[in-house]
Amino acid sequence: MLHVIAIDLGATKSAAAVFGSNGEIVFSETGLLKKRNGRAVVELLSDQVAALMKRSAENDLIISSIGICVPGIAYEKTGNVWCPNIPGWDDYPLLGELQRSFPGIKIKIDSDRACYILGETWRGNAKECSNAIFLSVGTGIGAGILVNDQVLRGASDIAGAIGWMALDRPYNKKYDSCGCFEYNASGEGIARVTVEMIASEKFKESELAKMDAGQITARNVFTAYEKNDPLAKEVIGNAIECWGMAVANLVSLFNPEKIIFGGGVFGPAIKFLDDIYEEAKKWAQPISIKQVSLEASALGTDAGLYGAARLAMKD
Amino acid sequence: MLHVIAIDLGATKSAAAVFGSNGEIVFSETGLLKKRNGRAVVELLSDQVAALMKRSAENDLIISSIGICVPGIAYEKTGNVWCPNIPGWDDYPLLGELQRSFPGIKIKIDSDRACYILGETWRGNAKECSNAIFLSVGTGIGAGILVNDQVLRGASDIAGAIGWMALDRPYNKKYDSCGCFEYNASGEGIARVTVEMIASEKFKESELAKMDAGQITARNVFTAYEKNDPLAKEVIGNAIECWGMAVANLVSLFNPEKIIFGGGVFGPAIKFLDDIYEEAKKWAQPISIKQVSLEASALGTDAGLYGAARLAMKD
Repeated sequence: MLHVIAIDLGATKSAAAVFGSNGEIVFSETGLLKKRNGRAVVELLSDQVAALMKRSAENDLIISSIGICVPGIAYEKTGNVWCPNIPGWDDYPLLGELQRSFPGIKIKIDSDRACYILGETWRGNAKECSNAIFLSVGTGIGAGILVNDQVLRGASDIAGAIGWMALDRPYNKKYDSCGCFEYNASGEGIARVTVEMIASEKFKESELAKMDAGQITARNVFTAYEKNDPLAKEVIGNAIECWGMAVANLVSLFNPEKIIFGGGVFGPAIKFLDDIYEEAKKWAQPISIKQVSLEASALGTDAGLYGAARLAMKD
Repeated sequence: MLHVIAIDLGATKSAAAVFGSNGEIVFSETGLLKKRNGRAVVELLSDQVAALMKRSAENDLIISSIGICVPGIAYEKTGNVWCPNIPGWDDYPLLGELQRSFPGIKIKIDSDRACYILGETWRGNAKECSNAIFLSVGTGIGAGILVNDQVLRGASDIAGAIGWMALDRPYNKKYDSCGCFEYNASGEGIARVTVEMIASEKFKESELAKMDAGQITARNVFTAYEKNDPLAKEVIGNAIECWGMAVANLVSLFNPEKIIFGGGVFGPAIKFLDDIYEEAKKWAQPISIKQVSLEASALGTDAGLYGAARLAMKD
């Protein structure tokens, strides 16, 4: 029976697994990046592939292909990748390097956001959807967009950069480094907006105002929200408005069946899905918004790994 | 040699033509709708097709297929259409009715915005683009979106409803009927915002403030802009900001090669393309925005007709 190897390369570790065609994980293993960079990361991946191939052979499993999920951009034409968190991987020839180590086996690489939506449509909460979107909200914000069963790549593989979505005019210079939506509603954004608001007299009683600005994280803000902290309520309310507007814009433009929420912030923010839907409903194309369903990721931190397996299985 | 019949059905007339495979128009004819509705519009279209088929046969041209551009939504699975300006065409079985009149010939129907981008990528300013968008700004606003050489349809054929794009929080009830972007920056929107602003003391010297509110059109506003009217400058500035933000959002999400501007407003607003680009550049994903080109429609009011011909030729 044919099996595939899937690898989800993250910022600190590389999760690898052998998948059967029904989505079952047969073997898995994890390698830590430990500040590796450039060629050393390729060696880590190659070692993982070699180990999983050996184990597969010992168990009479045939590996037909390899799928790899990378934290950045995967350029389809060249097989090169750009991964800001891996030093030296700026237009790095990852496919070429791996293919040299494993000639004769099909290797496919795609971005994390592309893999997330592939994973969710294969084995998660967007099963059988042909038009669905994975909204990943962690440190940053990105979207994996499935259109007519195909991942939307754009002209140069950088489609889905939804963190740059314009939602709140006029333009403010503070959006320069990451975009308006991400500035307001990513994990880092939630911390940043909190620090900005602490300056206001109104929130001097907030427990967050008593912390060092450098110590404030989205997690602190969610914890304070649970205790009805007024500053946390304001910041989360701001984020819900932005998430709702972004959902509305995705719905009006793409008319998707589902939008799946994942990443570190969803997580704790999953409880706000109904509020996000209510905000989106105000703005969106009125028929389209009734047809969409907002859901949590079913695969959580495994979405990239499942997506890489799905990628490997696709023609 | 094989030829196709293309029909662009508008609000007041139906333009029909026989096209050769290189995009040349061999014969054409126009029929006026004259308040026809329901079945009577099908009869007009059938008469046009029959007349063009007869003329083609007389000239030894073989018609291989028919493409029709409709002002509304074309449902791919059923062949039905929804056209708000044609009474009785609410989920109307247009494909079935036409196919009964012309059995044995392939007939294809799509929405105006889908046809516009098909036309521009075939014979207009987006030639050879696989990822391009037609932004149509007239009475309303819609987008025809080409992704990987395919028109983006969404789950139920209503993708591209960009008039509903959320750009300016908080939500205002006045956006209820048409969406935030369309409220501010369609032809009707420009007139509407002008009337709203006349209430302000600041603009009492504007020549527009001296007109009857009911008489103000986008055309008046563009004319006043040419004379440096301060109210017109404010309203057009507001629209440019919205067009720029919408372009930014399309660029960040779709990473397209080109965005083509058409519809009645572009037209006079074409001269603002550089200003729109400058506004978009502030907001958009910084690499993607450098790769996109904003252009005027090359086909103008013929974009739908060319798109219908292209539709007929596609497999």
